[in-house]
Amino acid sequence: MSFKFLSQKVAQLIDEELMGASGGFSVDQLMELAGLSVAQAVQKTYNSEKYSRVLVCVGPGNNGGDGLVAARHLYHFGYKPSLYYPKQPNKDLYQRLVKQCQNLGVPVYESAFVSHLNEADVVIDSVFGFSFHGNQVREPFKEIVQAFQTTSLPIVSVDIPSGWDVEKGPSGEATFQPDVLVSLTAPKICAEFFKGKHHFLGGRFVPPLLAKKYGFQVPHFPGADQVVELN
Amino acid sequence: MSFKFLSQKVAQLIDEELMGASGGFSVDQLMELAGLSVAQAVQKTYNSEKYSRVLVCVGPGNNGGDGLVAARHLYHFGYKPSLYYPKQPNKDLYQRLVKQCQNLGVPVYESAFVSHLNEADVVIDSVFGFSFHGNQVREPFKEIVQAFQTTSLPIVSVDIPSGWDVEKGPSGEATFQPDVLVSLTAPKICAEFFKGKHHFLGGRFVPPLLAKKYGFQVPHFPGADQVVELN
Repeated sequence: MSFKFLSQKVAQLIDEELMGASGGFSVDQLMELAGLSVAQAVQKTYNSEKYSRVLVCVGPGNNGGDGLVAARHLYHFGYKPSLYYPKQPNKDLYQRLVKQCQNLGVPVYESAFVSHLNEADVVIDSVFGFSFHGNQVREPFKEIVQAFQTTSLPIVSVDIPSGWDVEKGPSGEATFQPDVLVSLTAPKICAEFFKGKHHFLGGRFVPPLLAKKYGFQVPHFPGADQVVELN
Repeated sequence: MSFKFLSQKVAQLIDEELMGASGGFSVDQLMELAGLSVAQAVQKTYNSEKYSRVLVCVGPGNNGGDGLVAARHLYHFGYKPSLYYPKQPNKDLYQRLVKQCQNLGVPVYESAFVSHLNEADVVIDSVFGFSFHGNQVREPFKEIVQAFQTTSLPIVSVDIPSGWDVEKGPSGEATFQPDVLVSLTAPKICAEFFKGKHHFLGGRFVPPLLAKKYGFQVPHFPGADQVVELN
């Protein structure tokens, strides 16, 4: 199988097309499927008894939203997720996703990151996604990325390891390697620099004509799975 | 495992609570998960090579929307779905779900039901759901239910076999038995009258506190599945 890695620009065009009039998807739908695929990747990689405590690090945009959805599914899969969500935008969708987690008793933390990290078995990095720009990660997210640099916990990055340049890969202070990368829709160029153990592709909703238009391959997903491990 | 079967009234209350301010779900989200669970139930029961041609019969409301979502997922699972959608409401969500199917080349039919039925290997009945009222099914849906009465094709009913009374079961001209019933959230009272081969529960999103409030059990779902077969 060969994959064309997507540039930041093309990833944005695909996203706009999926959610525009011609694609017909709502952000709720795509986020639900993206978050579910992240949860399934975790479930395939980390046993829910040995790695029950999952700390989901939630950023301010849609990558964070994927993490919020993943947390809910992980609860239903038998894990004990918690959210670290230090900057909660005043946006209806995110607030509803948080509410859904709170209704399951999932704790939501806004400060003291390191103490929560110390109580986790595995970490989900859903801080920044493919629209991340800028050389320097600022607080309150800088603290998270700095901890990713040194933690011995396994990290599962959603679409982009946070702080990496979407095209150039490890960048500035963000040079950590996640253990698992869950690319969404198609891998972005920075995935070429991923040296962790498992690279999954999530997002089983891409119309073949869309993939053809942008010149990337959609691999075969097994059964009814929402993720496939790439080699 | 014991399940309390839900009355029509309680099913409506639960739906309202899930999508109200306290539940936080959008209809897009719940429909996505419901439709995915229907597609997974089909995938677990009917081999995609032997039963590739899936005719999804789509009603005018949310039960139909679940069918539209299921059709899309079935396409991605390797089936060849088509839609029979004789009365398409002018509602943005349904129109977008149809668009998503059309972008996959899924045909959408509006008439000549029997000829399309004759070209199918399995039928999904997503015509009426738990809000169905009334003794008599009217056209253009009457033709569909009449065909269900006599077809030898396997039928997969979404939540309620269409035309059945939600509480009293087989009713009037609708006395057919689907081969598969996919109950959503929790089985409705009419599920007691189901005598088909496989009864699945879909909708892995119910907060335990909500189930407790309404006095029903949420069974254990295996792995990362969105459906569980009930005994």
